[in-house]
This record gives sequence, C-alpha cells and structure tokens, in this order.
Amino acid sequence: MLPRGRPRALGAAALLLLLLLLGFLLFGGDLGCKRRKRGGRAGAPGCFPGPLMPRVPPDGRLRRAAALDGDPGAGPGDHNRSDCGPPPPRPSKCELLHVAIVCAGHNSSRDVITLVKSMLFYRKNPLHLHLVTDAVARNILEMLFHTWMVPAVRVSFYNADELKSQVSWIPNKHYSGLYGLMKLVLPSALPAELAHVIVLDTDVTFASDISELWALFAHFSDTQAIGLVENQSDWYLGNLWKNHRPWPALGRGFNTGVILLRLDRLRQAGWEQMWRLTARRELLTLPATSLADQDIFNAVIKEHPGLVQPLPCVWNVQLSDHTLAERCYSAASDLKVIHWNSPKKLQVKNKHVEFFRNFYLTFLEYDGNLLRRELFGCPSQPPPGAEQLQQALAQLDEEDPCFEFRQQQLTVHRVHVTFLPHEPPPPRPHDVTLVAQLSMDRLQMLEALCRHWPGPMSLALYMTDAEAQQFLRFIEASPVLAARQDVAYHVVYREGPLYPVNQLRNVALAQALTPYVFLSDIDFLPAYSLYDYLRASIEQLGLGSQRKAALVVPAFETLRYHFSFPHSKVELLALLDVGALYTFRYHEWPRGHAPTDYARWREAQAPYRVQWAADYEPYVVVPRDCPRYDPRFVGFGWNKVAHIVELDAQEYELLVLPEAFTIHLPHAPSLDISRFRSSPTYRDCLQALKDEFHQDLSRHHGAAALKYLPALQQPQSPARD
Amino acid sequence: MLPRGRPRALGAAALLLLLLLLGFLLFGGDLGCKRRKRGGRAGAPGCFPGPLMPRVPPDGRLRRAAALDGDPGAGPGDHNRSDCGPPPPRPSKCELLHVAIVCAGHNSSRDVITLVKSMLFYRKNPLHLHLVTDAVARNILEMLFHTWMVPAVRVSFYNADELKSQVSWIPNKHYSGLYGLMKLVLPSALPAELAHVIVLDTDVTFASDISELWALFAHFSDTQAIGLVENQSDWYLGNLWKNHRPWPALGRGFNTGVILLRLDRLRQAGWEQMWRLTARRELLTLPATSLADQDIFNAVIKEHPGLVQPLPCVWNVQLSDHTLAERCYSAASDLKVIHWNSPKKLQVKNKHVEFFRNFYLTFLEYDGNLLRRELFGCPSQPPPGAEQLQQALAQLDEEDPCFEFRQQQLTVHRVHVTFLPHEPPPPRPHDVTLVAQLSMDRLQMLEALCRHWPGPMSLALYMTDAEAQQFLRFIEASPVLAARQDVAYHVVYREGPLYPVNQLRNVALAQALTPYVFLSDIDFLPAYSLYDYLRASIEQLGLGSQRKAALVVPAFETLRYHFSFPHSKVELLALLDVGALYTFRYHEWPRGHAPTDYARWREAQAPYRVQWAADYEPYVVVPRDCPRYDPRFVGFGWNKVAHIVELDAQEYELLVLPEAFTIHLPHAPSLDISRFRSSPTYRDCLQALKDEFHQDLSRHHGAAALKYLPALQQPQSPARD
Repeated sequence: MLPRGRPRALGAAALLLLLLLLGFLLFGGDLGCKRRKRGGRAGAPGCFPGPLMPRVPPDGRLRRAAALDGDPGAGPGDHNRSDCGPPPPRPSKCELLHVAIVCAGHNSSRDVITLVKSMLFYRKNPLHLHLVTDAVARNILEMLFHTWMVPAVRVSFYNADELKSQVSWIPNKHYSGLYGLMKLVLPSALPAELAHVIVLDTDVTFASDISELWALFAHFSDTQAIGLVENQSDWYLGNLWKNHRPWPALGRGFNTGVILLRLDRLRQAGWEQMWRLTARRELLTLPATSLADQDIFNAVIKEHPGLVQPLPCVWNVQLSDHTLAERCYSAASDLKVIHWNSPKKLQVKNKHVEFFRNFYLTFLEYDGNLLRRELFGCPSQPPPGAEQLQQALAQLDEEDPCFEFRQQQLTVHRVHVTFLPHEPPPPRPHDVTLVAQLSMDRLQMLEALCRHWPGPMSLALYMTDAEAQQFLRFIEASPVLAARQDVAYHVVYREGPLYPVNQLRNVALAQALTPYVFLSDIDFLPAYSLYDYLRASIEQLGLGSQRKAALVVPAFETLRYHFSFPHSKVELLALLDVGALYTFRYHEWPRGHAPTDYARWREAQAPYRVQWAADYEPYVVVPRDCPRYDPRFVGFGWNKVAHIVELDAQEYELLVLPEAFTIHLPHAPSLDISRFRSSPTYRDCLQALKDEFHQDLSRHHGAAALKYLPALQQPQSPARD
Repeated sequence: MLPRGRPRALGAAALLLLLLLLGFLLFGGDLGCKRRKRGGRAGAPGCFPGPLMPRVPPDGRLRRAAALDGDPGAGPGDHNRSDCGPPPPRPSKCELLHVAIVCAGHNSSRDVITLVKSMLFYRKNPLHLHLVTDAVARNILEMLFHTWMVPAVRVSFYNADELKSQVSWIPNKHYSGLYGLMKLVLPSALPAELAHVIVLDTDVTFASDISELWALFAHFSDTQAIGLVENQSDWYLGNLWKNHRPWPALGRGFNTGVILLRLDRLRQAGWEQMWRLTARRELLTLPATSLADQDIFNAVIKEHPGLVQPLPCVWNVQLSDHTLAERCYSAASDLKVIHWNSPKKLQVKNKHVEFFRNFYLTFLEYDGNLLRRELFGCPSQPPPGAEQLQQALAQLDEEDPCFEFRQQQLTVHRVHVTFLPHEPPPPRPHDVTLVAQLSMDRLQMLEALCRHWPGPMSLALYMTDAEAQQFLRFIEASPVLAARQDVAYHVVYREGPLYPVNQLRNVALAQALTPYVFLSDIDFLPAYSLYDYLRASIEQLGLGSQRKAALVVPAFETLRYHFSFPHSKVELLALLDVGALYTFRYHEWPRGHAPTDYARWREAQAPYRVQWAADYEPYVVVPRDCPRYDPRFVGFGWNKVAHIVELDAQEYELLVLPEAFTIHLPHAPSLDISRFRSSPTYRDCLQALKDEFHQDLSRHHGAAALKYLPALQQPQSPARD
C-alpha cells in the first residue's frame, strides 16, 4: 500500500523513484509503458486509484469516510476517486475480456443491448459475452447478435432455467426476481477454464473503456476473489425506517451491479458451499432477501472480508433513490460506469439526472450498425457469415447502375425479435397470425388494426435505434396497444437506401407461431369477422392437411379518411354500389386483383378456385411453412407478385373466400414509389431483378416456369404502389 | 529535449527521476497528478508521446523514419505513436480551451457541426469557439448555437469577408478557395489577449478529449509557436508526377488541419510580415498555392524551423487519397483526431475506411440535443436564455394532465437554417415565398411541389440529426430538387412527443426573404399559375402598402393518388362537377373553409371580401411582417385557426382571389390526429390552450376579442385533421 497525503509525501516519492528505476531496469528504459507499447490504448490509462480503498479493518467495519464522505477533492480520505499512483497494468492490446450478464425476459433484453452498445463504443479489446438467459432472452439475443455481426465479439449462452433450482429456495423480495439471485451460481455455471470475469447488471451503462475495469484484477491480493464497489446508500446501515433490518454487511456494504470475479479462486475456496451456508443461516432470522444476490454477497463478505477487493466508486455510480453517489464523483469526467439501480430507472431524482439521462439516451438511440466497425489491430475470428458477406459485397461492381439494389439485397439487417413483451398464442390447430411489415410512418394504423383483428399478429418494423424508442413510447401511450400481448413486434434496423420489403415480410413470417398466416399489408383493415371466419374456413377446407391452397381475401379500397367500415358483405356491397368503396386499385392497376373475379365474388356462397394471371397479387392465407418472399425485391415493385408466382409454381390452389374482405385506407405514396416513377434506372433495375428471378424460377421448376415468362417481360406500369 | 531509444535510456531514466523529484518538491508529493487531482479526467491521460518528434536537424530535412515509417510497435523510431514518458501536464479541470475554425458557406457549416459534436462528446472542459465566418455561415451558426444552448460553450464570430483582402492577393488552386488561406491571419484577427488557440479544419473529427491536445502546448520550448503534425503523404517530397513542384517544406512537411498556435509568440515574432515575405518570394517562381495556407505555413517553417513543435501523428490522421496514415497508428485505439482531407471525403479509399466512416457517421447522426448535458463540476455562465428556460420548466407541474403540452411549448429546438446551399431570391417588390413545414414522411411531396411552384420557398423540416442526413441524400438523388437553389430548407431538430407545428411555421416564415409569403401546407399542390398570379394580384391590389389584407387561395382536395391536375379554373370546376375533386374537407369539416364561399368563387371575376367566421382556416398570402403563429398550439388542432383569428383581430381584410386555387393530396392521418381522436385528455388540453389563447387575445385586443369567444368555447370535432 502506497502512502497518501503530504505528511507521507517524501516517502511516497522515494518509493516511486525506486519503482521507476526498477521498471526501467526490467523493461529496458520503457519505464512502465511496456504494456502500452504492446498496444494499449494510447493516452488512455492515466491515473489509477492506487490503494483502492482502505483495507477492511479487523472489526469488519469500513471506515465510512474512505469511500463516500467528504467534499470532492478534499484531503486524504478521497482515494476512491481515481487519484494517482503509478500507472496501472492494462490488459494487453488484444487480450480477450470476459463479461457475464444474467438476462431474462423481453424488457431486460432491451436493457442489455443498451449496456452492450455502451461497452462496445468504448472498448478496445475483443470481448467474450457470457449470457445467462431464459428462453425468451436467448431467442431475442441469439438472433440479435447473429445479425449484428460485430467483429471481435463472441457470445455464449447459458440456460438460466437449468440454474433456477440452485437459487429458487431463497425467498427474495427484489424486483429482479429469481434471476436477480443467479449471479451467485456463476462460478459453477461458467466454464471451468474461465478464471476471470466481469459480471454486470443489465441496468449499467459504460462511460469508459472496460479494459480499465479489467485492469483492476491486477490489484487483487493473492486471496481476494471479488472486486466490488461500496454501496452508495445507507441501506445496509439499517434504521432507514422502523424495523428496517437489512442483511449483514461491512459498513455500507457493497453493490453487486458491477463485480470482478476471480472464478478460479472462488471455486477453490468452496464458494458454492460458502454462500449457501451463510444464506441458510441468515434466513433463519431474516424472512427473505430484499436486494437479491447482493444481500447474500454482503453477508458472505462480512464473514470472509479477505475475499473482497474494494473498487473505486466511479466504476459503479449508483443512481438509486436515495443515492449518495454524488460524494463519489466531483465532475462528469470522473464517471466510468453508471448504474440505474432504482426501479424508477430514468425517472429517478438526482441532482445530475439530466446529465445521466442524456448519457444513457446516447446509447439507447445509438445506431448499433456503427458498432460493426472492425477492431483493427487485433486479429480475431470474423463473426459467422461475415467473410462470405464481405466477399459477396467485394464482388459487386460499383459502376453497375443497379449497385444500390444489389448492395441492399446483401445487407444483413440487425433483427430484434419480440421487442416488447409478448405472450405466444396457445396452440390451436387452425389458428392464424396476421403478418405484415411497416415503418414509423404507419404506426397510426396499429390501433385500428388491433380493433379489426383480435387474433395474433407478427409485425416487422423497419426502424432506426432512435425510432425504436419512439415506437416503445407510442405503444406505452396507447391503452389499446399496450393491452395486446399477442402482437409480436420485430424490429429490423434500417440500413441502406432501399426499403427491404420482402426481407421484412420474411422476418415477420418466420416469427409467426400459429400453423397458418394471413399475409397482409399494414394499410389494410380486415373485416371485423375475418379472424374467426378464416379459422372456420381453414378447418372446413382442410387447408394444409388435405388441400395445398392459398385462401384469397378479396381486397377493396376507400379513398376517404373517414368512412363507416362495413360490418358485413352486404354492407360492403352497398358501399361499393354508391362509390364509397372500390375494388383495390380499381383506378390505377386493376390487373393486380382482377383474377379474384369480383363479379363472381358478389354472388359467391362458397369458396371458388381462380387461376393465376400476370401481375396477380392477392392477399392470401397459407400454412406457415409456405415459400418465403424473394428478398431480391427491395424498394418498390414486384415483391408480392413474385411471391404469388412462386405459390402458383409450387401448385398452391388459389381459393377465393366468399365472405372474406379487407379494405385499404388512403395514404401518401411511399418514397420508393416516388423514386420508381421518376427514375428510369430504378425501373430498369427492377426489370433486371425480374429477369434474374425468372432464371431462378426456371432452375427450380424447369419448363413449368415458361408460363410466367410473358408476365415477367412486360414492363411494369409506373403508376402503382 | 529528452533522449530516446535504448542507447540513451539510462540518461532518460536519470532525467526522469530528476523531473519527478522536482515535481514532487513543487507539488507536495502528488507527483505530477496534482492537476488531475484538481479535476482532470480520471484515468484518462495516460501515455504521452514524450519527445514528440526528433527536432529538425540543421539541414532542414526530417528523418523520415521518425514520424511515419516502420512497422507499428517497432523499435526506437516510432516515438510519434503516443508512446510513453512521464504523464503529460493536463489543463486544469475547468480551464477554458480556445478553438478557432474558419468556416464559409452552407456545406462547411454542416461539416463544422459534425466536428463540434465530436469535440463536445469527448470534452471535459469549457470551450470558447472562435468562428471566422462569411455571412452565410454566420447566419447559420449563430442561430444554431443560440438555439443549441450547450452549457460551457462560448462562441465568438469574426467576419471573414473583412479579412479577405489580406489573403486575396495569393493565387490559390486548393478546393477550399480563399477561405483556405485565412488561417494565416488568425494571429491578428483574434483578440490580442488570446495567447493559445487550437486551429481546426472543418473536416476533422475528434476521437478523444481535446484537452489532451491542448496539453501539448506545455511541451513547446520557449521559442516554438506552432504545433503541427507531419503531412502523411509524399506530396512535399515532390516528384509525384512529371513537373510536380510542391512548395518548399521540411521533409514531408506538415499538415495544417490541426494546429496549436501560440498567438502571443507569433505576434511577437512578426508573423504577419514573416509569412507575407515568404509567400511573396515563393510566388516569384511558383504560380499559386496548391494546398492553400498549408503551403505557406510549410515554406515559413522551412525558413524558421525553430517555430515548429511537431505533434504526434495521431492528432491528425490524414485520410487523403494517397495517405500514409496507416504507418501512424497500429490500432483503432491509437486514433485521436481523424482528418478527411481528401476532396472525396467519405468516399476516399483507405484500408480502414469502413472504420473511419462508421466513426464519422456516429457524430454526423448523433442527436445534438444530448450534448446539452451540463459540464457539472465546472461552474460556467449558462447560455443566454437557459436560466429563464430552466425556471419556466421548473415551474411546470408534472401532475398537470397537460404537462406534455406545456413542456413541448417551452422546448427550444435546435434550428439549422439553410441546411443546403441556397441562393436568396433577387429583390423584387411583389415577390412571394411559399412557406410550409414538414417531417420525413412528406419528403415525397417536394418534387411535385417544385413543379407546381417555380418561385422561392422557405420550408421548415422537423427531423432528427440522422434524418437530416437521409434528407440530404434524398435531395442529392433528385435532379429536380438539386437544381432548385431558391428553396431554403431549415432543419428544426426533433425533441419531445408533440409536433411543434406552429414553431415550425414560424421558423419558415422568419426565413422568408421576399416581401410576401404564401402560408401553405405541405400536402397541397398549388395551381401551376399560382406563383405568377399571386405576384400580379399583390401588385394590382396594393397588398401591404395600400391595403392591409390577406389574400385567400381557395382549397380543394382530391381523394385519388393519381389524377390529372387541372391547368385552369375551368378544368378544376369540371373535375369538381364530376366528383373527382371536392372543396377541402367537404366530407369531414366543411366549416374550416365555408367562409371562402365556393359558390361565389365559381362565378367570381374579381377578388371579393369575406368575413371571418368560427373555425375558418384558409390558406392566405400576406406581407412577410404578418403576425406569427401562436407557438402554444403543439400537436394537432387550432394551429391555423388561431392564426386567422389573430389576422382578423388585427383587421386584415380577407380577400378571395377568383383565379387562385390549391389542391390537397391524400395521405394517412398523422400520429397527432390519431392521438387527438383517441385521447379525451388531449382534447381537454387543447381546450385549455384555446382558453389561454383567448385570455391573451382579450389582453391585446380588449372587447374586440369577445367576438371570438363562442368559437373558442365550442368543442372541436374529433373528426378532422
């Protein structure tokens, strides 16, 4: 331990000189900068807290002054605020850092992404994330990381549900629930060869390079195994209110939002038995944990104070309700990790909460695509698929007038499935999910859609990270939408200039969980009865099982903002007769729906079969395992038409349902259709895509594909959307 | 000068020990960390380049190996890559840092904002920006910084046009033009009391805290006055092509994208005469500067090598076309400042360009509002208006159901006027500017609008920083829009949940430069002849000068996506008769335009006067000095109606023009109208706003305001937009 303060200054100087001389002799004149020379972050490490906190005295109580008290910049007490000592050892440039996070459910999955973004923004090292997840979080995060393709980030998943039994016997009152206790079992759950790991709560945000935190491992004594920041509230001092009886802790205790774990030493020390014994004993007199794992960690540490290495408080600035964190930092520049450890999160009251909130929002809204930047200087395994993608992109010809189209087709969009809490529908044999895709400018359709379709929906939303947050607030503000747990929202993050309409449809389709899907568009409102009617029709017709068919839902349109939605086919026909409704695209593009044969539909009492014809693009109900949409069609044009061609080529019958209908509401033309109309290149590129589509069709279906050739060669009218 | 490399290592160590001891004696044992203790960035400073670059040898040529050559991490030659020495002195926590930037025109003004964002993101110190601007940039940046309200940032403007004569005699071929030379005159242009300044090109991006750069001033010897990074290309070595004859320079020369200037010493050394003499002499044999100020700086330095302090190359990583920058950094973590010094900018070819591009995009798209975060720990003068704003916000009652409305009304939006190059219209006495506002979802209206309105337009766009970039690409991709220099686009940055419709209108209105304005909405297309017809009518009626009037342009609507726009009133009436057109909101809200008296308009041959009535909201032409829109109306409802009330209260005549018309195109209902319809609170709040509006009206107009009371008390139908 280095001496502090003026009275000891002379001794300190002497010691430093000695150390420097030693360093010089050892490293040949590099004077302690050897590591950095091997690649450490230039100019970054700087001041180090030196003796992090006073060692725990034998009586087990921390001197309170040491960690939190005193005004900033004051005398010898404030060593916790990253003051100086010799430069700390830093992890070598390309050292792999391990991070473990417990994450369960939809909301924590969103939180953890913000944490990861902040970590990636500042990191200079390859990272290995060890994610202990329930099934929901795993489903979300596996897809997210797979599509994110961040270089030099490895992700491993561990099944939280398998670990539950190890902690479920502990009564716990904390809002994080059972998963809040799971950090206790990490030494046994993580791979035996893993010796060091940083453990983080999902509600922390980095304001600095995580390697600086990792470097603190080097300060552990030979027996220390747990690095922790002191708790920044008076909770563990007790007496916050009458009969407030916290778990035992050293002084203010420690906060477990950020932990440095020496897994090897904990295993060796018999951690599993140790914490269980302590917890069992305390639970004889205490009814439950209040702060989940943190109570137990503190109780263990109180018993075995030698295990803990106190960390500088800036590595876990706790914004709880009655936080004393302000004593920890004197300026914005001191902050390293911010911990939103109040259930109120961003709504917490704090003198600098505006600052913290802006900081958090920075990463909440940060375009995660930008974090795909290469960690150059550190060789690492590219993410799965990244190399092929790089090659395919490299083969594109930038001079090709359709370069933008080809680039967009190859783009791998980050996908965050079930962005909001979602209850999968109970398994029902004829159930049908409405599938559609949208961007921000169609959010206002959602409420009406929910009123018209009481069944499950799977919706892909094309948004930026910032828009995803607006979307979240939009849903929260709508009682209608907030109440619908059977609507799954899948965020596909924007990248590139063209709208990847079919990629979006495929995401929504792949996430539908019922045996049937209704492939709709967001501007349509289905008949109120459609959901029930479709399920009855599916059963009646034996769709999928006895009959390979696509059920056609006839499409209409209104040109009015407000109109009285028909409650029956009779009402619909009446509106049609007075010109308040039209068949869909009656004025601009009747070919798109002509084969539905509206005249026959008027009179039909039973489903009737129709034949495919060029440009037919009806809205259909099909089994979930139907062909996917062709992702080559990006932007405007031929995206649905190609899908119907594929269905016909695969010999799906087209059956029009006599009582089904859906109505298109007016909206402004999309940007893509505007570009299509104004740009001959755009139209030429679409034709090129169609040609290539037909070549593939011929490859798969042989001579049968000839049937579609005339349709594909015919230039598309520029007048539709 | 400190020794370098192994052979001199022993001496270095000894010297270091001495320095440390000295530091200790001076600072009472804090050993070089005193400054940090007083508030420096915790853990940040770290490695320092020590002896930055070898001193220039007497023959005036730099050893090339020293600055750029050699593989990363190699032996003693690579001192330029932030290797180690003793920790550098850092500016004290709240020291004010001065930055000077020359900025002219619309495009550079956009660039400089990205630079400023990156600087603010990492800064820990108060900043004083000294902006040398032309009239265009000043207009843009003054408004921007005024509305940005970033704490601890002061901005001073200097008139570049007044400095022009000092450099205009120098023939210059560089793409930056005359303004590229202006850095030469900073010592005389900046205030005499300013001694230190960092000078930056607009095309640099910070990847680190600017205080680390500022700290390098401390390494200047007593005579050095200019800190520069070596040029990272072979340009100044000459012979890049036949007859390539660069200006004289030491070795590779220096790049002037980032300069540390000791203004005091330059003034003392007779800088003004010094550079002029050198430039005049070189121009006897060289036809012009190729790289603007940089050529002259280099020629002066070649003559007076003692002036220059070479800086570590990471402080100006130059991404020019044939850059050798890769030799400078070995890893992403080394980068401090990135310089896009190719005219190709982001399109430049470079091994790590993807990395650099993502880094740049981070700040290009970064939400500048988030940089309003307080630099707490450093007391500073709040930006003008900030205190009153804080007080007003603090007085709001969070429990008030209309809290969101009141907060939105108080929000000061960042405003970037003339976001794109813009030519003000030539002064014409009866000219009229179309004024409107929009958000991203209406961009597709712009092309059609340009075809319908050949005159000047002033449009406010409500967007995020990221959307503003999409908008830029949208304009660039459209030949129609890119050609129109008379359309001024003013970006108002999004903040808050409600659409600040009237604030947007006021921004567009304030920026209109003609004597008259046509107050339109973005969903309307005016008659092709309207621009000419309005100017003729204004002249004929003596609008503004003889007659205080608002000219009403009758509004119609189509419910079809495509229709043949009428070329005359006759054609319009024919479409009206067949039901292809309606008078505006005929179905949903006829009251809004009923007073226009469409029946009379059919027959009218001359302008006719109409009377105000409740809910009247026509589109009007008025003198530019007309009343502003009431900014309290945010979101949906009463925003235009209130403006017409105000016009009527101020006794504007309402004159309907017999040949004028404008037609509304269909679009989906806005989010705000959806909220209005579904939320009783929203409607109640609107009523509260109306009441308050009426109170203000009574205050201003006395008993005359009684006339409007019934209209204000009548609840608004939830059925309109």
